[in-house]
Amino acid sequence: MLSFVLIGTGNVATHLFNAFLNVDEVAIKQVFGRNRETLKYFSEHCSITTNIDAIVNADIYLIAVTDDEIASVSEIVSRKPGIVAHTSGSISMASIRSKRKGVFYPLQSFTKNKEIDFTKIPICIEASDEKGLSTLNTFANFLTESVNEISSEKRKKLHLAAVFANNFSNHLFQIAQELCETESLPFELIQPLILETVDKLSVLNPKKAQTGPARRNDVLTMQQHLDELNNPIHKKIYQLLSQSIKETYEKKL
Amino acid sequence: MLSFVLIGTGNVATHLFNAFLNVDEVAIKQVFGRNRETLKYFSEHCSITTNIDAIVNADIYLIAVTDDEIASVSEIVSRKPGIVAHTSGSISMASIRSKRKGVFYPLQSFTKNKEIDFTKIPICIEASDEKGLSTLNTFANFLTESVNEISSEKRKKLHLAAVFANNFSNHLFQIAQELCETESLPFELIQPLILETVDKLSVLNPKKAQTGPARRNDVLTMQQHLDELNNPIHKKIYQLLSQSIKETYEKKL
Repeated sequence: MLSFVLIGTGNVATHLFNAFLNVDEVAIKQVFGRNRETLKYFSEHCSITTNIDAIVNADIYLIAVTDDEIASVSEIVSRKPGIVAHTSGSISMASIRSKRKGVFYPLQSFTKNKEIDFTKIPICIEASDEKGLSTLNTFANFLTESVNEISSEKRKKLHLAAVFANNFSNHLFQIAQELCETESLPFELIQPLILETVDKLSVLNPKKAQTGPARRNDVLTMQQHLDELNNPIHKKIYQLLSQSIKETYEKKL
Repeated sequence: MLSFVLIGTGNVATHLFNAFLNVDEVAIKQVFGRNRETLKYFSEHCSITTNIDAIVNADIYLIAVTDDEIASVSEIVSRKPGIVAHTSGSISMASIRSKRKGVFYPLQSFTKNKEIDFTKIPICIEASDEKGLSTLNTFANFLTESVNEISSEKRKKLHLAAVFANNFSNHLFQIAQELCETESLPFELIQPLILETVDKLSVLNPKKAQTGPARRNDVLTMQQHLDELNNPIHKKIYQLLSQSIKETYEKKL
């Protein structure tokens, strides 16, 4: 049986909490937060506290707060016996101010009120000592088939890759939606294409899957597209991404 | 019973051909192509020809060739009785050189040897006369639940939106893969995130779903990410898309 205290009550904290609620081998001892309102949900299932001095002992202290609060929050539990692990993609393990440090980073984008199946989500772990690594490994294995020991340096690169794959691609979907709306076309028309773009990755890597005017160097279509774009920043994005696609394949030749 | 002649033997032609093979109410009368080698596959199922003069009569002539060949290829069947429709997203209907013109544009990205379920794919139709529109409507309805009458002008905008949603987002996935590979990290680590990015669109529109350092205006993380990027064009893409995300939400305030 592994026990943990959850520190934080936001989106990632809530998703991890809900996932561990279903794991019999893990005891959620307590949730610590500063906001009584957001703590309410957790209080239905376990002990909660807003008092630093009332934090109980546990095997793991899981810090799920915003990046810039991790260091200061880790201070709160620095004298506790368990390993103190944060859940961030971009903060190095060294930022944790306790002797036994760790990272427990689920590589996923969590949406409020949208349930997530953790079994396929990669969890990236790291620890300052072997025992801590073993504890986090066991802990992560209760949730997912994909537990990966990844250093802070590599995790940062992974997080950067995730920004391109998730944040930036979502922004392109948003531009596509905007373009549809200017013509009173429903965004739903584009959704099967988006689904297929991603489904394709299961049989082809993105480098081989690339299609479109830039890939074909279809100058005429690209010029027409640029003429149709009214928003100057959309024009710039079109030009830059087209140029980047062209360069990717020119390099290959 | 509707009959059609398929003109072209490429990727889109093959996918449409395979889809209509399963439709009892549609007779594929013939496939016309210039390349005997690529015609072979079709010859197993129907009549084929490389001879313009041998093209038979049909209700519909479906032109699935590259954009810049559509006009000249349409000439071949300009005196035939049926409606001549191309399958392109970006070419206007007026480019077709026949009296009865039409468009039959399946809004999807087709991959060689990857089967596609047409039932959810939007097909955008347009025709120069009411009878032609009715014919194409019936024809499209045999394949999909989503038949949409869309003008050439609107279709062009839709195609442009598709470039952002499909071609450009795929390129971002490719950059993410490259970033993973420079650290010997498997791209598979990112794939559940990509799946979720798209799955999220079923409950939230992309404008509301946006997350990440640019959305939060997390200047420190963005600077760290820029420092980590070695490829100058990746840096530019990071900067431009971050700026565009920021501007999108500033406008809203």
